[in-house]
Amino acid sequence: MITIEEALRIIDEEGKVIGTERVELTDALNKVLAEDIYSKDTLPPFNKSAMDGYAIKFRDTECCQCGNEIELYVKALVRAGDYYEGTLNSKEAIKIMTGAPVPNGSDAVIQIEKVKENGNKVIISDYIKENTNIIKMGEEIKSGELALEKGKIIRPTEIGFLASLGYSKVVIQKSPKVALITTGDELLDITASLEKGKIRNSNEYSLMALCKNSQVDFISLGVVCDDKEALKKKILKGLKEADIVITSGGVSAGDFDFVENVLEEIGAKINFTSVAIKPGKPVTFATIDNKLFFGLPGNPLSVITTFEEFVKPAIKKMKGYKEVYEEKMLVTAGNDFKAKKDRRKFIYVNIINKGGKYYAYDLGSQCSNHLMTMSKANGIIIMPEGVNKITKGEVVNGRFIFK
Amino acid sequence: MITIEEALRIIDEEGKVIGTERVELTDALNKVLAEDIYSKDTLPPFNKSAMDGYAIKFRDTECCQCGNEIELYVKALVRAGDYYEGTLNSKEAIKIMTGAPVPNGSDAVIQIEKVKENGNKVIISDYIKENTNIIKMGEEIKSGELALEKGKIIRPTEIGFLASLGYSKVVIQKSPKVALITTGDELLDITASLEKGKIRNSNEYSLMALCKNSQVDFISLGVVCDDKEALKKKILKGLKEADIVITSGGVSAGDFDFVENVLEEIGAKINFTSVAIKPGKPVTFATIDNKLFFGLPGNPLSVITTFEEFVKPAIKKMKGYKEVYEEKMLVTAGNDFKAKKDRRKFIYVNIINKGGKYYAYDLGSQCSNHLMTMSKANGIIIMPEGVNKITKGEVVNGRFIFK
Repeated sequence: MITIEEALRIIDEEGKVIGTERVELTDALNKVLAEDIYSKDTLPPFNKSAMDGYAIKFRDTECCQCGNEIELYVKALVRAGDYYEGTLNSKEAIKIMTGAPVPNGSDAVIQIEKVKENGNKVIISDYIKENTNIIKMGEEIKSGELALEKGKIIRPTEIGFLASLGYSKVVIQKSPKVALITTGDELLDITASLEKGKIRNSNEYSLMALCKNSQVDFISLGVVCDDKEALKKKILKGLKEADIVITSGGVSAGDFDFVENVLEEIGAKINFTSVAIKPGKPVTFATIDNKLFFGLPGNPLSVITTFEEFVKPAIKKMKGYKEVYEEKMLVTAGNDFKAKKDRRKFIYVNIINKGGKYYAYDLGSQCSNHLMTMSKANGIIIMPEGVNKITKGEVVNGRFIFK
Repeated sequence: MITIEEALRIIDEEGKVIGTERVELTDALNKVLAEDIYSKDTLPPFNKSAMDGYAIKFRDTECCQCGNEIELYVKALVRAGDYYEGTLNSKEAIKIMTGAPVPNGSDAVIQIEKVKENGNKVIISDYIKENTNIIKMGEEIKSGELALEKGKIIRPTEIGFLASLGYSKVVIQKSPKVALITTGDELLDITASLEKGKIRNSNEYSLMALCKNSQVDFISLGVVCDDKEALKKKILKGLKEADIVITSGGVSAGDFDFVENVLEEIGAKINFTSVAIKPGKPVTFATIDNKLFFGLPGNPLSVITTFEEFVKPAIKKMKGYKEVYEEKMLVTAGNDFKAKKDRRKFIYVNIINKGGKYYAYDLGSQCSNHLMTMSKANGIIIMPEGVNKITKGEVVNGRFIFK
């Protein structure tokens, strides 16, 4: 049995990016940029009006400082997308729309709300400083400058920015594909009536949902009964078709837990088979031909917990993410919590924010067979190894789940 | 100009759920449950072993308290999915796998790691309490009990739980469909070279990405030039095909900002046209036939900010979510921040977690034309109305973006 830190260190070491691909900009969302992006243009490409108003010479408004009004002749109108060929002279104004190029000779734009319009005249009573409401050419970026660095996660902001820079396609890190295998003779189809000794297959559905939330493509290879050869066939198929293979069940110490056996037979490197985490101790992690194999436990709560703790960071690492772990926060125990001493306990709780401070409340049985408690929880708190109690008022590490 | 709170109150009042639909369980992820789910079964449906080990009578181990070893006859093996017909007697053990039904007569399971196996005998030296490693029938839920309440968000946990309860289909709240319209004569196609007075269309791409992250279906009706009739046609098309229509641009005070005009002509109820937020003041919100219309500003930073602040809560509300606002947290200013006094300022910053405390650092120009600064930011801090400075060390409200 190894510690969670040691398990995460090994997974991090083995998980590697799997190559790049050039995709349409709209398909690049939440992927990692795999090329440096340089601007081919200077942006904005011209001095630009930040407001609807009048382009003027600011010196014309100097006498407004003493309470005078000035009247300027409006000689043209520039709309966004258009431009004015000539030059603005003193005592003249050009009506201008937001986003339009500021005409030559103008050094300020006065907002439309601040003037009086009178036919082809505009009356101004405010002093306007030089460069007011002018967004200078090149203020955002200059041609040839680095706009976005390789390794950046492409969020809606970056999608917009890349569009403004004229990139309709970008090179991104490929996302790993995941294959799911559910094991167990006791599993009935979701639509079946319960029979003696049987339960319904829920882990396959949980795992599909977890993959969907992790934004990876996945295939489910279905349920395999507790038969070594059948399991081996499925695992080999998974390794052929995907970058990450996940099984649930078959990793305990039972007579029909064949996962470890199969991994040995196919020559996989078994990195660990047990982690000091509760729920979820029997977690197997193996590698073969740069592909990752996760043998997760069969208990419904354990499978979700270990996916979030071990598989999710691996998926993020393979996608090229730099930050792969969920951020923890400090949470105050709202009541006492008790558990067994040995492993590190992830306790599913209700976290409430009271004036910027987080409090955790007990939700009942943490039995790893139950999803009922977890379905009421919005977070976890962590009880360290060697500790069997958290006292009301104590501050511990925790985090929200599925945020 | 109204406050952000007032704007959000109006949006919240106007946004309503749009009906329910019955979908496959796998399509229900992150949707809101629109029916109460009762358990048709008692779960677990039998007393179940939590471990691989031996089902025994706990009283047989009583003498182990004095340091004695006992030897029990192993009369059968029960694998998961199977069951044992007979009854366990004193001095007998039945080998049992995790998840298998505990045989009649047995009241405890001892873990395989704690025994010595010797042919058809098992040797035990630990005292085991009654019910050890037995998950009691009905411990999770009993037949007829409420399992999940209407209004719950369906996360991976709930997907697994619903599968275990035998629900292959569930009734959920429908998601609204969004139509996007980008306005402006100045907009060039993303692949075009820049021409005098023109910029590339980036807002359409930002909005598509924002919708994708909000997990709603959307259609983009493309770019419409600054022409009232053309805009009207597009808006009517959007209202016909979608539940929410979003335009970007055309909502300032300029001569070619026709959004308000069109809304009046088609008989929409215009709720507000301006909000005290920076970036993003000119935000129009209207309603017509239970559909929502958002006229967002044309500046790239403003369009993203106002989508996140105003449109996202409306989408969540229509999806049936109860918590529709992003949670804020306390952030300490890592340096001074200055801005104009009037509106509430959303300042894009770099938030760093130092020992559980968040610090915000300046990233440069907050000009609403620029996506460059926002592309470096991971969060915002909020400078209230009437305030023009945040001093280093001051604690203010903030949050991460795109988390």
